[in-house]
Amino acid sequence: MEKNVLLTIAYDGSRFHGWQKQPGQVTVQGHLEKVMSQLFKREILLSGTSRTDAGVHALGQRASFKTELGIPTERMAMVINNALCAAEDAGGYAKAPVRIVEAVEMPMDFHARFNCKSKEYIYRIIDGTGQSDFATDLSLVFDRNYIYHVKETLDVEAMKKAAKLLEGTHDFKSFEAAGGNPRETTVRTIMSAEVLAAEETGGQRSIEFHVRGDGFLYSMVRIITGTLVEIGQGKRRPEEIREIIEAKDRTRAGHTAPPNGLYLATVFYE
Amino acid sequence: MEKNVLLTIAYDGSRFHGWQKQPGQVTVQGHLEKVMSQLFKREILLSGTSRTDAGVHALGQRASFKTELGIPTERMAMVINNALCAAEDAGGYAKAPVRIVEAVEMPMDFHARFNCKSKEYIYRIIDGTGQSDFATDLSLVFDRNYIYHVKETLDVEAMKKAAKLLEGTHDFKSFEAAGGNPRETTVRTIMSAEVLAAEETGGQRSIEFHVRGDGFLYSMVRIITGTLVEIGQGKRRPEEIREIIEAKDRTRAGHTAPPNGLYLATVFYE
Repeated sequence: MEKNVLLTIAYDGSRFHGWQKQPGQVTVQGHLEKVMSQLFKREILLSGTSRTDAGVHALGQRASFKTELGIPTERMAMVINNALCAAEDAGGYAKAPVRIVEAVEMPMDFHARFNCKSKEYIYRIIDGTGQSDFATDLSLVFDRNYIYHVKETLDVEAMKKAAKLLEGTHDFKSFEAAGGNPRETTVRTIMSAEVLAAEETGGQRSIEFHVRGDGFLYSMVRIITGTLVEIGQGKRRPEEIREIIEAKDRTRAGHTAPPNGLYLATVFYE
Repeated sequence: MEKNVLLTIAYDGSRFHGWQKQPGQVTVQGHLEKVMSQLFKREILLSGTSRTDAGVHALGQRASFKTELGIPTERMAMVINNALCAAEDAGGYAKAPVRIVEAVEMPMDFHARFNCKSKEYIYRIIDGTGQSDFATDLSLVFDRNYIYHVKETLDVEAMKKAAKLLEGTHDFKSFEAAGGNPRETTVRTIMSAEVLAAEETGGQRSIEFHVRGDGFLYSMVRIITGTLVEIGQGKRRPEEIREIIEAKDRTRAGHTAPPNGLYLATVFYE
């Protein structure tokens, strides 16, 4: 009997040209469909929730697929992970890690994207890297694809204040990059936007921006993050967020933060 | 006036096809020479200490070069790191990080490779990953290129015992892979070989193998590590190390552990 399976997926996005299948590119969807189709000896087609860009990571991407496979859903994550692991080992020294965090059965009319109510992204930053002493902190060499390094020491309080001004229902046109999919409106609701910072050690802090919304425009989280970083650098005032939203003009917002610090954290349904 | 500069270099080896310059491949030496030559507007040729393989990392690789550059040696690390950083940012989402940890001036007759007295490697392992619960531990997705994941729980005490038997001056022919450079002898001295393990958390442990020697044969540390892992898995007895050394036969030793867990940690001179 056919069933509808929802996968929760984590991946190292710095190894992939984004989520969405594309000819001639190594993408997460393309890789997963290939490994799963070989494993299950039938064509598997995934409907993903979010088209993460090249370099963007996922802790909790979601994708659903319909199948008549007899294998119990609760064993599916382990079986797929073993196949993914073997594919990585066969692929040589530059491994592109993807793992199934969970597999659950859903009603037949459930769709990973259309049923999504909201999503949470996390953007990771390390500040003060301009003074980095690589003789005492080599982590900055190895986390370069996973965290945005900002040379200056950031004013975290100003960033927190600015993040709060993003909450609510607004037209986020100023925070949309060109090149996205057609959409009916640029109005979105941000349920929460928070800047969290760890204690400073050696002039550096690990800073996270957590944002949950009912939807995001193309590159919206990265443009918001770039703007928050500029506020932290003292180049802009926190209150400017209001003016930028009102302007509905991309050129008024800050730079697009690099993809490497961005994580699709959670997809919410219900 | 010409000076002889010794660089200490750290890099994420999973992004490079090894240290040594090769046509058509992205290598650490090739990348560094290109960035430095552009920066200093003259050809820079590096003599590296160790030809690390594709996927192998470095915390303390060394390379020397002769130059008439006026720039003070103590400013060199910062200047080169800024150029490396800019090259990474220009290179898109899959960054290949290299950093200069230190630059010091040496006598004109000093050579980074020929003056090397000993080297220390660190091999990083996580055990018990076969029972991984990705719902609670996503670090295993993101450290896949940096640590060797071993599914089984390893007998660390047996590994410690076996490591001790490697110390001393031995013919390590059994631990040499085919395809290395011509060498006069396969006798090497291992000054110290130690297995260190962190407390177990959630059925997993971070295990490190630290080995210091006056020289290593091709893939020697990886073959030793693979053999130690098999001892930890209970497939071999610790005492077998003696028999493997005596056999002088590669087929008697264990598998070659993957490059991803290996770090060239320190190069010693004097």
